[in-house]
Amino acid sequence: MTRPIRLAISGASGRMGLALLSLVRDDERFELARAVVSSSSARLGKPVYADVSPLRFGDWSGEGEADVVVDFSGPEGLAAALDRCEAGGAALVTGTTGLSPALEERLAKAAERIAVLRAANFSLGVAVLTRLLREAAAALPGWDLDIVEVHHNRKEDAPSGTALALGHAAAEGRGARLDDLAVYAREGRPGARKAGTIGFAVVRGGDIVGEHQALLMGQGERIELGHRATDRAIFARGALEAAAWIAGRAPGAWSIEDVIATKG
Amino acid sequence: MTRPIRLAISGASGRMGLALLSLVRDDERFELARAVVSSSSARLGKPVYADVSPLRFGDWSGEGEADVVVDFSGPEGLAAALDRCEAGGAALVTGTTGLSPALEERLAKAAERIAVLRAANFSLGVAVLTRLLREAAAALPGWDLDIVEVHHNRKEDAPSGTALALGHAAAEGRGARLDDLAVYAREGRPGARKAGTIGFAVVRGGDIVGEHQALLMGQGERIELGHRATDRAIFARGALEAAAWIAGRAPGAWSIEDVIATKG
Amino acid sequence: MTRPIRLAISGASGRMGLALLSLVRDDERFELARAVVSSSSARLGKPVYADVSPLRFGDWSGEGEADVVVDFSGPEGLAAALDRCEAGGAALVTGTTGLSPALEERLAKAAERIAVLRAANFSLGVAVLTRLLREAAAALPGWDLDIVEVHHNRKEDAPSGTALALGHAAAEGRGARLDDLAVYAREGRPGARKAGTIGFAVVRGGDIVGEHQALLMGQGERIELGHRATDRAIFARGALEAAAWIAGRAPGAWSIEDVIATKG
Amino acid sequence: MTRPIRLAISGASGRMGLALLSLVRDDERFELARAVVSSSSARLGKPVYADVSPLRFGDWSGEGEADVVVDFSGPEGLAAALDRCEAGGAALVTGTTGLSPALEERLAKAAERIAVLRAANFSLGVAVLTRLLREAAAALPGWDLDIVEVHHNRKEDAPSGTALALGHAAAEGRGARLDDLAVYAREGRPGARKAGTIGFAVVRGGDIVGEHQALLMGQGERIELGHRATDRAIFARGALEAAAWIAGRAPGAWSIEDVIATKG
Repeated sequence: MTRPIRLAISGASGRMGLALLSLVRDDERFELARAVVSSSSARLGKPVYADVSPLRFGDWSGEGEADVVVDFSGPEGLAAALDRCEAGGAALVTGTTGLSPALEERLAKAAERIAVLRAANFSLGVAVLTRLLREAAAALPGWDLDIVEVHHNRKEDAPSGTALALGHAAAEGRGARLDDLAVYAREGRPGARKAGTIGFAVVRGGDIVGEHQALLMGQGERIELGHRATDRAIFARGALEAAAWIAGRAPGAWSIEDVIATKG
Repeated sequence: MTRPIRLAISGASGRMGLALLSLVRDDERFELARAVVSSSSARLGKPVYADVSPLRFGDWSGEGEADVVVDFSGPEGLAAALDRCEAGGAALVTGTTGLSPALEERLAKAAERIAVLRAANFSLGVAVLTRLLREAAAALPGWDLDIVEVHHNRKEDAPSGTALALGHAAAEGRGARLDDLAVYAREGRPGARKAGTIGFAVVRGGDIVGEHQALLMGQGERIELGHRATDRAIFARGALEAAAWIAGRAPGAWSIEDVIATKG
Repeated sequence: MTRPIRLAISGASGRMGLALLSLVRDDERFELARAVVSSSSARLGKPVYADVSPLRFGDWSGEGEADVVVDFSGPEGLAAALDRCEAGGAALVTGTTGLSPALEERLAKAAERIAVLRAANFSLGVAVLTRLLREAAAALPGWDLDIVEVHHNRKEDAPSGTALALGHAAAEGRGARLDDLAVYAREGRPGARKAGTIGFAVVRGGDIVGEHQALLMGQGERIELGHRATDRAIFARGALEAAAWIAGRAPGAWSIEDVIATKG
Repeated sequence: MTRPIRLAISGASGRMGLALLSLVRDDERFELARAVVSSSSARLGKPVYADVSPLRFGDWSGEGEADVVVDFSGPEGLAAALDRCEAGGAALVTGTTGLSPALEERLAKAAERIAVLRAANFSLGVAVLTRLLREAAAALPGWDLDIVEVHHNRKEDAPSGTALALGHAAAEGRGARLDDLAVYAREGRPGARKAGTIGFAVVRGGDIVGEHQALLMGQGERIELGHRATDRAIFARGALEAAAWIAGRAPGAWSIEDVIATKG
């Protein structure tokens, strides 16, 4: 591109939003067009950067056209971001989860007119692992497959969203649906392993950012495919890679795996 | 010792019994005195070895005094072996599980007069791991502790007996009882990790003999203590080490950890 | 196929040959046509199986047409097997290594007329890992890549042939040659890691059959792709899978990765 | 203690020094008595904290008696710290490396009159691992022992100092010296593993803080003892634990393992 990509960040005062603002600042591929926060945010109207930059945290009103909107806000914020993307033809990158069926549907429809990339985990490493696992599950159909995940001791759900996404990819590789294969816990006397199932095992402790390992176990051999995250910054970095990738891209529902597919 | 240790094997036609017979044959520390099977065994009266050795699978009657009885039979076989040990002053090594409270009590009483060594897992590596884990749990009292175990796809119970034994040792290291600390499965929304708990995670697949890993997770660092078994022969080898160790030993309730303690 | 694949085994009295004979016996996809040994073999002329089967270890003379020849003999045995394959149009699966340049060339030429599959490691798991590693290396071009391998204490060379093959695949994924990237050992003061290199690390001990792990290390995250073999029988099983796959296949130089590609 | 431990930090403007200053601030066990820097430091005379605290970076002159001096300076700074400790009877905790034989000797002599604790790695986890490895090496004398370490791509030496310290502990557990056992790299055709040796394997990549794993490999089983650091703050935290532990302690040459021994 001859000019930088104009970026709007939705949910700019959240943990991911602030990480994105910090990275964008030193990334010549981008120009920050807007930092959008909810109307109840304490940062509303305050300067985005503590220096000469005139940009302030705001809403979608006024000036600031964007090529790409990166959204880590929440269902409401995502809906507002979608309005704006559709009006201006901007592409959308979103990591917001917990969408209502109605919003899910709207997002799906929007992807017919604008480029939309949605992911539960923006780590490029996890994206690569997801693709590799789908392939391995397909190439070794008779091997038992389990997924182990390890996260910090404050995490409240189990297994992690990323472990489930890996499970979906593995099931996909075998032409099946995870819901039909998943075994979420083994305790007491579960009996012999049922062929074709996908098991999950969960470890919690310390301040571990997030680790996932898929084991494919055959007779006399096994394959272990794992990812370890040690720094939360990788998620913001991956979202920016996605933003750079989607700028000017054709309408459609894209995934983070499409970003790494181009590279591979 | 100037002469070999006279060994009786109780449960000699089981998987462990046959493995023991095969190892004893080439081990100069031992002389096989008896190969005892239940009265319903198809091997009763048949030769133990397919060669000139006159020894036959039998019961406890007749000749064949032993210094040590190694028992992998069952509660009934164990009771008969105990009778014999107490009568002749032989030491007892047993891996039989599923004992009634009455038999448990009898075994405890017997240990006042003869040397008794009991273990759930006769791997020397697991014995060392158990000791190390107890120490680590004591030395790092504030660290989160979870145990992951991996076994073949035919295993019916979860977590494994060895994982539970490791959990008991860890709890002991913290002056507590595993029953008060154990979290056997995490699924759905278990919430943040409760301090001091010991979690278990279970993987099943392929023909994996048995693997255990304890994770101690602090802030910014963790310790991982693991054991992998790749050959079931280690259990028979460990039982023979225990037999060699206990020959001539004072009365008492010994454990496989005592065997490795002498070495360490 | 309506009839079993007729199989000739070249190098039938070696460790791999005997393992193949044992597996073929219970595999309905195959019919054993010949068990070829060198003229100096002590087994020459002896029965292949200790039962009614009339088949004897022999040479290439006489009856016994084959659809596929599986060769684990040596350069001389391979040359003789090639003669026969070219004469009869049989496909060839070979794991023989240490070929002279002349034999290499002959093998390459033969692949213009018959189907030839050659591999250093016939484990299907290693084949899958090789493909995944090539892809991962391509998808994450800026990540540091090292390969760790673990083998038993009798292994004399380092790194293992399989580790080198993985290194070649990784280099290929990055459009480069391993010779230009490999760092075989780090000791003393090697200095900071040079970008783009592929490092090797070697562990030796016990009776470990063979384990390989590739680490791709980025900023704040990493991917770990590993394989563990616990039973040498996987190599014979993989060679038979290759034989079943190549029967009736078009001429060409095939690899074990082609076998798993069809499945995946 | 009824009053906080008075702490002097030597090398206060270095990376470790600043990390210590930041931690001490919120730690009620301590009161900061001095923040000592070299005479050439740019921070000399500047305030230690950006607030009402009157404390400034300085030298050893003037007021500010300490119970414990924590030193991460350099040989010169350590010599000056030693002077002060001996004069005032303060205990010394030091992580300074690269000492001349003369300074080594002085430190050894000082330990006859004051409490001195010296360590290459102040992680409590590494201290625990070191103790466990020494024990395991002693308890399993016939098992092959290798150490694998993984660090970021800027690290210039190999193996790491911590890997070597682990190797020393393992050799100690076997009543031997590491120099007689160490094999620092395996490449080409090193031949079969020599019994009793301790091998090292080195991985470099990404921004990995530091990971160490010891493998003890027997027949049919193995033990894996590992430590992973994900945050450099653990080293400063460990040094403060050492300072709290050594306050009021008897003269002697103490190690970080003594700190965790009291706990275990």
